[in-house]
Amino acid sequence: MSSTDLHMVVPAGGSGTRLWPLSRAANPKFLHALTGTDRSLLQATFDRLAPMCTPERLLVVTGTAHATSVIRQLPELPERNILVEPFARDSCAAIALAAAVIEERSPGAVMASFAADHLITNTAAFTDTVRHAVEGAAAGKLMTIGITPTRPETGYGYLRLGEPAEAGTVRTVLEFKEKPSAEVAESYVASGRYLWNASMFLWRTDVFLAELAARRPDVHDPIRTIARAWDGDEQETVLAEAWPTVPKVAVEYAVMEPAAAEGKVATVPGAFGWNDIGDFETLGDLLGKDIEGGGRVVDVTGLAESPPVVVVDGDGVIAVPCSSRVIATLGVADLIVVDTADAVLVCRRDRAQDIKKLTELLREKGYVAHM
Amino acid sequence: MSSTDLHMVVPAGGSGTRLWPLSRAANPKFLHALTGTDRSLLQATFDRLAPMCTPERLLVVTGTAHATSVIRQLPELPERNILVEPFARDSCAAIALAAAVIEERSPGAVMASFAADHLITNTAAFTDTVRHAVEGAAAGKLMTIGITPTRPETGYGYLRLGEPAEAGTVRTVLEFKEKPSAEVAESYVASGRYLWNASMFLWRTDVFLAELAARRPDVHDPIRTIARAWDGDEQETVLAEAWPTVPKVAVEYAVMEPAAAEGKVATVPGAFGWNDIGDFETLGDLLGKDIEGGGRVVDVTGLAESPPVVVVDGDGVIAVPCSSRVIATLGVADLIVVDTADAVLVCRRDRAQDIKKLTELLREKGYVAHM
Repeated sequence: MSSTDLHMVVPAGGSGTRLWPLSRAANPKFLHALTGTDRSLLQATFDRLAPMCTPERLLVVTGTAHATSVIRQLPELPERNILVEPFARDSCAAIALAAAVIEERSPGAVMASFAADHLITNTAAFTDTVRHAVEGAAAGKLMTIGITPTRPETGYGYLRLGEPAEAGTVRTVLEFKEKPSAEVAESYVASGRYLWNASMFLWRTDVFLAELAARRPDVHDPIRTIARAWDGDEQETVLAEAWPTVPKVAVEYAVMEPAAAEGKVATVPGAFGWNDIGDFETLGDLLGKDIEGGGRVVDVTGLAESPPVVVVDGDGVIAVPCSSRVIATLGVADLIVVDTADAVLVCRRDRAQDIKKLTELLREKGYVAHM
Repeated sequence: MSSTDLHMVVPAGGSGTRLWPLSRAANPKFLHALTGTDRSLLQATFDRLAPMCTPERLLVVTGTAHATSVIRQLPELPERNILVEPFARDSCAAIALAAAVIEERSPGAVMASFAADHLITNTAAFTDTVRHAVEGAAAGKLMTIGITPTRPETGYGYLRLGEPAEAGTVRTVLEFKEKPSAEVAESYVASGRYLWNASMFLWRTDVFLAELAARRPDVHDPIRTIARAWDGDEQETVLAEAWPTVPKVAVEYAVMEPAAAEGKVATVPGAFGWNDIGDFETLGDLLGKDIEGGGRVVDVTGLAESPPVVVVDGDGVIAVPCSSRVIATLGVADLIVVDTADAVLVCRRDRAQDIKKLTELLREKGYVAHM
């Protein structure tokens, strides 16, 4: 990948509550084989990024709860490249920790950060887009890869673009937009001037850390202190002291939005079959197989020859068997049925966006172990 | 109970396929606490019959697969009163075996036979009805207790009655009718001349065995041979030799229908809150408790303080949790959801009668262990 010193970062966090009970705090989305193969989303992310750098330059940031699973799923990753946060401090802390550790190891390197739980079907197009974005990062921009929208999605944030530059694919990002209403989303897509924000970031670590220092010293200072101690004997001591002082804030809010307002953020639009596997509808569309009787079965293990699902007189059933139990449906339409070791969900398909509401009620009722 | 030598017989068989996956071949309906208490249907049947005779005069006929469960559920029952069939040979063999064993032990006794998996809410009325029927049996009639129908049910067989006798409650049964169509069932109920056949039989054992000998020597002869050996050392040898030769036939078909045609069958109509708990609808009506969110929960354990069910925006959901798993539904209406250790059923309420079709498909697909 040219002569640029490129490091890849994968923040592996988030519980994917809209995929409950499949995905949950203790067993989040990125650990599951939601890829159509037996590789987990995390592993598929690793597979996609690994050819662009050496394993020594690929870092994963995760929490204590998932460190063991991450380590087991990625045996190729050097131990020192798994950065374990004592507890979650939102995306700015995670990404700044990676940036600061890389800066210690390779001053002025370019880092690229991609979520652990997104699916990308066209790896060649993705790699090509990253290549262009790395050029912008090397030139000192805070880069993001925005996804060319394929529908007026209300579940994502958007990037508002400036006028097309003279030539090339790099566009200025004028503004980060929160999740829009349906009407606003329609207008965004129609305008051709908006991209989905998929939290893909690329920058020189020195450039990002300087921005962070200027805007959020409360995040920057303890993170730099931690990073300086990271590869030494004092890691645990310094982490224990400094980490709890780091404020919880999203990187978009802390750095990218104000930097965009100053013209420091740019993007390369990407169209490479990106999907965040955000809900069971998507899962059914992407990974489901038609089943006799009227529905689709999503085999999340990627292994079973014949998922244990029997549908009689069904219509639009999405069945997700995650245990060895049989799922049998009779005469039902437009339902999602998910069976796991400790919970079974039966949800009308057009209510799948409200699963979070359901999990909140479960928490209220004391089923905390099921979250 | 007067001076009549009354013996009670409980054939404990049948798998209750319309209650799959709760009830199944390996764990049939009568072993479950579908009674609103922690007593199983079998135990509730025992509790209902025990006051009418001594434990020495109460017999259960069951199969090898359920003998252990039956024995454990009924510790009061003398060992010799649990008649274990090597394998099922339909109702005529089961009931004839009981009749022949009783005849060996108490020649000319009256026996009364009641299924193990029916629920009766008014025990006093039931006992009173049995008392009247015993009188008819003692007088030499093949008696049945027919249930006064409360709706035009198409799931039961019917008894066609003769003209009311001079006085008393005993009525002649002219004919046994198969399960009728909806239209025919309507006409039966409207006429006031039909009762439901609940397979409740009372007769003198010598009278019944003489009828059986005359009509079906192929059933009678091996059963009598077995019964004569039952209480001795040769039971196993004789059983092994003779039982496989016994034809499979229902007692209605082999004896009661032809005997009715000759005027030998009579009935006492019964109205004592009888229910055969044939499907989940019935279970929901009888044993369900309203749940916040819109539905009813059937607690089949009879024990749980708070069944693990959470319903959000539901309407007419019947949830039957039979494992410790959480059942969560979101936005669904008129559904039955049953969760057991190895299967989960999601069924439209108006399709509950077709569960047998579903289990047949499961068998075809090789899920034999789930039957």
